[in-house]
Amino acid sequence: MAAIDLSSPARSSPAPLSPRRGSLHLLLRRPRRPSVRCSLDAAPKQAQGPPAAVAAEEAPTARKECYGVFCTTYDLRADEKTKSWKSLVNVAVSGAAGMISNHLLFKLASGEVFGPDQPIALKLLGSERSIQALEGVAMELEDSLYPLLREVSIGIDPYVVFEDAEWALLIGAKPRGPGMERSALLDINGQIFAEQGKALNSVASRNVKVIVVGNPCNTNALICLKNAPNIPAKNFHALTRLDENRAKCQLALKAGVFYDKVSNMTIWGNHSTTQVPDFLNAKINGRPVKEVIKDTKWLEDEFTKTVQKRGGVLIQKWGRSSAASTAVSIVDAIRSLVNPTPEGDWFSTGGDGDYELVKDVAMDDFLWERIKKSEAELLAEKRCVAHLTGEGNAFCDLPGDTMLPGEM
Amino acid sequence: MAAIDLSSPARSSPAPLSPRRGSLHLLLRRPRRPSVRCSLDAAPKQAQGPPAAVAAEEAPTARKECYGVFCTTYDLRADEKTKSWKSLVNVAVSGAAGMISNHLLFKLASGEVFGPDQPIALKLLGSERSIQALEGVAMELEDSLYPLLREVSIGIDPYVVFEDAEWALLIGAKPRGPGMERSALLDINGQIFAEQGKALNSVASRNVKVIVVGNPCNTNALICLKNAPNIPAKNFHALTRLDENRAKCQLALKAGVFYDKVSNMTIWGNHSTTQVPDFLNAKINGRPVKEVIKDTKWLEDEFTKTVQKRGGVLIQKWGRSSAASTAVSIVDAIRSLVNPTPEGDWFSTGGDGDYELVKDVAMDDFLWERIKKSEAELLAEKRCVAHLTGEGNAFCDLPGDTMLPGEM
Repeated sequence: MAAIDLSSPARSSPAPLSPRRGSLHLLLRRPRRPSVRCSLDAAPKQAQGPPAAVAAEEAPTARKECYGVFCTTYDLRADEKTKSWKSLVNVAVSGAAGMISNHLLFKLASGEVFGPDQPIALKLLGSERSIQALEGVAMELEDSLYPLLREVSIGIDPYVVFEDAEWALLIGAKPRGPGMERSALLDINGQIFAEQGKALNSVASRNVKVIVVGNPCNTNALICLKNAPNIPAKNFHALTRLDENRAKCQLALKAGVFYDKVSNMTIWGNHSTTQVPDFLNAKINGRPVKEVIKDTKWLEDEFTKTVQKRGGVLIQKWGRSSAASTAVSIVDAIRSLVNPTPEGDWFSTGGDGDYELVKDVAMDDFLWERIKKSEAELLAEKRCVAHLTGEGNAFCDLPGDTMLPGEM
Repeated sequence: MAAIDLSSPARSSPAPLSPRRGSLHLLLRRPRRPSVRCSLDAAPKQAQGPPAAVAAEEAPTARKECYGVFCTTYDLRADEKTKSWKSLVNVAVSGAAGMISNHLLFKLASGEVFGPDQPIALKLLGSERSIQALEGVAMELEDSLYPLLREVSIGIDPYVVFEDAEWALLIGAKPRGPGMERSALLDINGQIFAEQGKALNSVASRNVKVIVVGNPCNTNALICLKNAPNIPAKNFHALTRLDENRAKCQLALKAGVFYDKVSNMTIWGNHSTTQVPDFLNAKINGRPVKEVIKDTKWLEDEFTKTVQKRGGVLIQKWGRSSAASTAVSIVDAIRSLVNPTPEGDWFSTGGDGDYELVKDVAMDDFLWERIKKSEAELLAEKRCVAHLTGEGNAFCDLPGDTMLPGEM
């Protein structure tokens, strides 16, 4: 997660690396076997079992931490409209009062992410400072009357909010203050993700899927994973999908094609200025990008910068960070983990998994050198948070400022 | 629209009114006839025709006002994945750089509103002040890679942006400044909606559907309609759906049922503190609300206030106005106009239509008096904007401040 291990994908690489535990950047294909749907697996089985004993509609039962109309208890099996639905999926979201969540929660509730027969329970984690705002979010979710949204609970204690979570979308992170060193940011956010990892380890579903969005997301994900030893390491992901989507869009724009023609896009390395959007393996209309876009100078010099600067340009224009498209990319990431990947395509995520690792990845010197640079940075970040991952004393020797523009 | 005409729904009312042209508040059922899908009607027909001559993918053609990757031209008919899709639907949105739009546009692009086989062109109207932000929005739409989103154009001239629009979602309106009189607000916003009505009349599809969201929405919709004589009056709607949704939620909360058990909810009158959420006709589990909720004092005193104050409470808690749930209610409103209404249910909208008007509406003195009060206010607002509707000189004699809390 934190460092890059290219053992699997880089089989055709000029300099294969040996595997390194717990530190892997993956190119994944989601196998076409529904039996690996993990947390959703149990749902249909439960659905076929006898209906659980629940309070009658006339006698609502208050659940701990539940909010407003979502405190009512129902028997989905007793209702003609809902009896064929799957069992409720528990989705925990941190930073739930923030702008990214404000987009994401309504997408989760609408059925856009998990499908039209998947009822959902949202468990919203905020802070003492944001608990009022969190109530406001819950009120807007009430007013949206989403039929699939059956439970909403809010709270500030991850040990309560993460209980039985089957998905944990960890969005909340402290932004970097003026003059703050990157190492200080790593430490502050590391503390948060260490605590949340421990909470997940204690109270979440044993097969909870974790997507870390809060930056620095790769190292935060590593910290979270290391503090949750009872949860399979493969279940932890750092969000690289927004960069992947942005890279696809820029290649499409340059080639003059619609973005749905771009496939096999990878983001290697850290979510920072050392990140490596991979135009060597990406394809346009099934052909290698370099055959379609002849402007090698643009590919080598401009393309990566444009992808990396995108967030900063957006802040300049729009005055805020890109909450809406970040939420869309989280939706994309979840869907890629849940649904089979289109034949021949892949997606990338920072993680450590037993997914179907892509093997036929090309490598050349240009790509290799850049990936090595990002790997070095991830390893340095890893050493810098060793006190949070249980790997001894921290030693912070970070390279220069590699925060992406627009991510303060 | 501006005033209430109860001729149809109030058949069982104690004091039936005579019809009054161009001023109608409707309870609607959407008939189950697909042939009345209006602007979507033409799509399947065109889809079966020969493919239009388009530029090859390798030679993108810039369209006027188009944005970035959306300037590329494609032949949807030539692509295996998209050849069975409907023809593009043109959706214009004003106030496109604002927070409500920031939620709505991504819902439109995702297929949540018009369905998974309806490609969409978004025409975004901003102001000179917001044009940079509008570019930011277009960039985020690019980065979201929505397959159905095929065109995005941005601009500040409604005569350009509204061209061929089949839907116009008019969200942009000036907020009321400190100390501004309601009549001044009516005038300022009235000017905007008069201009946009004229633009729609000149350049939009002859059957464009218009949903006015910007407040005061009822009177803005009247002004817009009066300035667009070539567009059927029935096509203009003022958004009452957010209040309808909020009212359903409060009834569900009080009755201890899930909100999907509440039906036949109506919001009569103006979108202001005189608005009348109708608990006489609403049903819970198919039974009249008054049979289920015995607390008449709550229904008569608290219920309406709670619905009306909802926006204000949200601002207090969340620190901003309820953009997300407003966008959801716009989605609901569009879907209700496009899809058949569930058997036995109805929805309400400020408008003037040849939809299937609901006839079996109950009326009692309590409901009647409140509707009359709201009607009086709407008529006063109408007189106050007569200079904008072509009905002579304005005479402003508005009652006290009836702006809903949280709508500044």
